[in-house]
Amino acid sequence: MKKVILITGVAGMVGSNLVKEYIKKNNIIIGIDNFTLGEKKFIQPYLNNKKFHFFKKDLSKKISSSKINELLKKNFLNEIWLLAANSDIQKGTKNYQFDLNNTFLSTINSLDLIKNYINKNSKIIFTSSSAIYGNTNKRISEDTIIQKPISNYGAMKLSCEAYLSSFANANSAQISIFRFPNVVGKNLTHGLLFDMKKKILSKKKIIQVLGNGEQQKPYSYVNEIIKCMIFIKNKKFKKRINYFNIGSNDKGIKVKKIINMMVKKFNSKKKVIYQKDNIGWVGDVSKYQYSTKKINKIGFNFRYSSKKSIELCIKELL
Amino acid sequence: MKKVILITGVAGMVGSNLVKEYIKKNNIIIGIDNFTLGEKKFIQPYLNNKKFHFFKKDLSKKISSSKINELLKKNFLNEIWLLAANSDIQKGTKNYQFDLNNTFLSTINSLDLIKNYINKNSKIIFTSSSAIYGNTNKRISEDTIIQKPISNYGAMKLSCEAYLSSFANANSAQISIFRFPNVVGKNLTHGLLFDMKKKILSKKKIIQVLGNGEQQKPYSYVNEIIKCMIFIKNKKFKKRINYFNIGSNDKGIKVKKIINMMVKKFNSKKKVIYQKDNIGWVGDVSKYQYSTKKINKIGFNFRYSSKKSIELCIKELL
Repeated sequence: MKKVILITGVAGMVGSNLVKEYIKKNNIIIGIDNFTLGEKKFIQPYLNNKKFHFFKKDLSKKISSSKINELLKKNFLNEIWLLAANSDIQKGTKNYQFDLNNTFLSTINSLDLIKNYINKNSKIIFTSSSAIYGNTNKRISEDTIIQKPISNYGAMKLSCEAYLSSFANANSAQISIFRFPNVVGKNLTHGLLFDMKKKILSKKKIIQVLGNGEQQKPYSYVNEIIKCMIFIKNKKFKKRINYFNIGSNDKGIKVKKIINMMVKKFNSKKKVIYQKDNIGWVGDVSKYQYSTKKINKIGFNFRYSSKKSIELCIKELL
Repeated sequence: MKKVILITGVAGMVGSNLVKEYIKKNNIIIGIDNFTLGEKKFIQPYLNNKKFHFFKKDLSKKISSSKINELLKKNFLNEIWLLAANSDIQKGTKNYQFDLNNTFLSTINSLDLIKNYINKNSKIIFTSSSAIYGNTNKRISEDTIIQKPISNYGAMKLSCEAYLSSFANANSAQISIFRFPNVVGKNLTHGLLFDMKKKILSKKKIIQVLGNGEQQKPYSYVNEIIKCMIFIKNKKFKKRINYFNIGSNDKGIKVKKIINMMVKKFNSKKKVIYQKDNIGWVGDVSKYQYSTKKINKIGFNFRYSSKKSIELCIKELL
């Protein structure tokens, strides 16, 4: 049977890779993006495909598009992927309105848009973040920690989760909340590897790194992240809203190590200069590790380590 | 020494009672309200007092008032009471933008307004709510529960807490977060007792109650809530941000019981009709009980039970 799937933030890294996956099947895909971080070229291959309906819209405002509503009225929504977000944590520390608009309001306005076109079989997938937890020395599990985000991005993602909890009480859809580690892969829009490539290719003779390079975080490859989300959203759960830490459960990889790998693969001769602090910016969580027992128990194990994920991404970047 | 105190939501129940307390001392009070729930008559007694500077402003928008900024530039802020909120939970269930504007945006825009006028000795007091916890059968303590709000009000209060966590990381003020039970007292603006008085005095011959009357929640009297907050904000804590459940730790009082007390005291002969559900509206938490060990350990014990608080409020209403 034909499925109708709405994806917000469709032109971002996760969104564009998800479309690539979903367009192979007999689905109707409704995609929305405002191209703040996402790029048109990432979805260019699908723009002329009849299965793909794209709308350039800014979800930070309540949208009333007669065309989207017409499409929705004809089609009950099977899946809603709420991917629209700032996701460039550093950018949101300088101006709280950036994450307010692009991470929080984009999510709650999307829910307002779809609320009349869902039922108890609809699946809402929300991509949250490890950033909601803030600093902790313990391995992070889904249930044991009261969340204390230290960045506006983390705060706004947690706010989305809070709103989804209230939304789940008033609406009948099934909601899966996936808390992401750092994600890398094709169609990268920001982050350490993205910045490093720019710095390596720039005219500047030195590479200035944010922080002392000792930050250590888990990384996962975007295709595996998508595979995991699809696997879990197809499972049945007793509760209407469920939370999952997804990604590798290894100790992560140090910034210094990533930079050395990049410099080597790009054959760069530039000098790399580190700062003194163990954080790259205000709100940077310098170290964390996931417990992934919950997803493992359901039957999903990440195959790629943090290091392997980085290697795969560097190949893409070359 | 003269203290400079900013109070948002100053014309609400908590705000107006707080001004009454603070204006006795040699303070400068800057008050902001948009009169959504608050009423001008509640602060009328202070409007001509030189110690009180009032601004009618809607904090759901980023405000740039040259007059407020001038005042702030001259005065480093000792205390900031973030009281502006919708607080009428039922009202926010119908329209998510109501709590978005009046509970969440009003808080984060206030923080943006003050951020350049605070230092490590500034005290930020935020009034949160039991509604952030959602439904639970256990006694609620500050640390053991992952919060799953079931109302938009609860979601937006939790969002404020998330943002304050991020704000605390980037700014040096001391932040106290007080999670309120139901609060009653002078200058009531909404809620069961407020509605009941209206229904008793209306022309309608019957009194229709939301829910089956079995809902059971703790109530506290506004003056004691204020006393508790002032007591705790003056204490020193290791952490820069601290969370407190405040209110009576009794089992609460049933809606039915409150209604019987109201009907009796008002000498009403009207017939009272209950509904079948044990919730009054979507998002109503029908039963909860606080653990108040944390505030008790610091040295504050609530003197008034839920029943006594209701009695005191009914006296005010008569």
